[in-house]
Amino acid sequence: MTERLAERVASGDSLALARAITLAEEGLPEGESVLAAIFRRTGRAQVIGVTGPPGAGKSTLVNRLIGRYREAGRTIGVIAVDPSSAFSGGAILGDRIRMQEHALDPGVFIRSMASRGQFGGLSRATRDAVDLLDAAGRDPVLIETVGVGQDEVEIASASNSTLVVSAPGLGDEVQAIKAGILEIADVLVVNKADREGADRTVAELRAMLTLLPMAEGAWMPPVLPATAARDEGIEAIADALDSHMAFLKTSGELERRRRRIVTARVLKIAQDLVAETVLEPFDAAGTDGTTLLDRVTRRELTPHACARALLARTANRIDLAGEGRDRH
Amino acid sequence: MTERLAERVASGDSLALARAITLAEEGLPEGESVLAAIFRRTGRAQVIGVTGPPGAGKSTLVNRLIGRYREAGRTIGVIAVDPSSAFSGGAILGDRIRMQEHALDPGVFIRSMASRGQFGGLSRATRDAVDLLDAAGRDPVLIETVGVGQDEVEIASASNSTLVVSAPGLGDEVQAIKAGILEIADVLVVNKADREGADRTVAELRAMLTLLPMAEGAWMPPVLPATAARDEGIEAIADALDSHMAFLKTSGELERRRRRIVTARVLKIAQDLVAETVLEPFDAAGTDGTTLLDRVTRRELTPHACARALLARTANRIDLAGEGRDRH
Repeated sequence: MTERLAERVASGDSLALARAITLAEEGLPEGESVLAAIFRRTGRAQVIGVTGPPGAGKSTLVNRLIGRYREAGRTIGVIAVDPSSAFSGGAILGDRIRMQEHALDPGVFIRSMASRGQFGGLSRATRDAVDLLDAAGRDPVLIETVGVGQDEVEIASASNSTLVVSAPGLGDEVQAIKAGILEIADVLVVNKADREGADRTVAELRAMLTLLPMAEGAWMPPVLPATAARDEGIEAIADALDSHMAFLKTSGELERRRRRIVTARVLKIAQDLVAETVLEPFDAAGTDGTTLLDRVTRRELTPHACARALLARTANRIDLAGEGRDRH
Repeated sequence: MTERLAERVASGDSLALARAITLAEEGLPEGESVLAAIFRRTGRAQVIGVTGPPGAGKSTLVNRLIGRYREAGRTIGVIAVDPSSAFSGGAILGDRIRMQEHALDPGVFIRSMASRGQFGGLSRATRDAVDLLDAAGRDPVLIETVGVGQDEVEIASASNSTLVVSAPGLGDEVQAIKAGILEIADVLVVNKADREGADRTVAELRAMLTLLPMAEGAWMPPVLPATAARDEGIEAIADALDSHMAFLKTSGELERRRRRIVTARVLKIAQDLVAETVLEPFDAAGTDGTTLLDRVTRRELTPHACARALLARTANRIDLAGEGRDRH
């Protein structure tokens, strides 16, 4: 069944894509089999991370970019990462709806996915979905995060190009956070450029960029004004993203980024596997009728020694699953 | 050396405490030995997590609470968790200075510690420091987080009682986030109660609390107005925290919380151990001269299979460290 599904994904079938992403989200072995089957077909798409503070107009901008790429005859994959908690529900779901004008276009595949935990972080399944879209021939693949918490930083470790969207007048706290995400930006957009203060925001961002340490021959992130709501400035953004991709290829930086993406991904999978499985023996009774949890709670065993013991057991179970050491 | 240091920690020596916390922060085996030596002496302190959005006045409130506990003859440990990134530097360090009036009091031990990564999460060392303070007879131990990102939620898995501090007029985004942290609050404070809108904030929080699912006989978090800057309302907060601790003891909930704290702690240590060690063999050449990283980058090996292989190897190394399975 998974082989047939993988074939259909590779042929670009949207229904198969949706099914395969769901399997990956559920963390089932079938999902992993599909991923293994299509893995050799990946690595071709330009993966573009889009992030920035709430209110910057990211979804409207992505919507316009989709339009531009469609005009150029490209088929597109979009993963919209939502924080899974209730606290920011309404507004974000509202945002997503702005992309729905492309919902009936088979050349555009849009999928909302939950981020990990309350304050973000890209899930393993998000990265799996990128591979599936890539294998299905979608290019570019856009990952949009709402720019709350850890998503912002992790997106750079999942993308070839990172597009950071800001807007004038988003307030002090947001301005402060910008400093952190400036370092991950390959292209910066000041959206809502028809608003007062846009010129100043552009100038400030350019000034801040000059303060970052920059190696010789490195990519200098452009700061581009745009008004996505009126479809203004979108062409320049698409061009800058193309230029960045060309730069990555000619400079050899693409290979380095790919290795960084793969490294972050393997680490994430390993950590997820541990989080899912390491506590299994924790409250299971041993030969003497007590659990490890009991022993730590009674302060007979330190949490550190307990964690080591649990890791050793986990690895045995994972290894027995047969995907382990004989592969290398 | 570590035995002697552990003895000095247990006797309440502040210099030894500072040294032991530094060892824990550095993740050295000596630090773990000290922790193992004092572990049996832990579990006595009331561990109080203090969190809330920036600008709520948490540090001022903690400062006043310290004063109140000192009057009652208690010795106190405070861990102030800072996000380690640059983006929120200034303001937070400024906050910390507000606690310095107790810096010369040997009955108050204050330590700033970095949170994990840019957007928070309590580090393993933070939890180690709680144990060290607990073993040194500090009671209560306060953990203050700046309320950015993941710290907010994790603090509930490290504390007996969670104090959530808010204030009127912190803006929409902050109000939205409150919904998420409401669920972890044992005591809620509306600080800066002399400001306009404080009554409404108190009423709103009470209304929101009634919407949460609540088991029969469960603790109902009180919502308390306070003006920490003027030392008003502090007594009621200290009383509410004492009442909560008494409730935990009589209801049997304390034991459940302790088990939850221990579980979260063991998981965190295991994940840290994996994060620190799992990638070591990733870019080491195998017998055929290629690395696992090469093989994944060339798409010969899936990231999932690679993560499993790395975990198996990591566990072997961790197990060989001798703290493993023979303990149980």
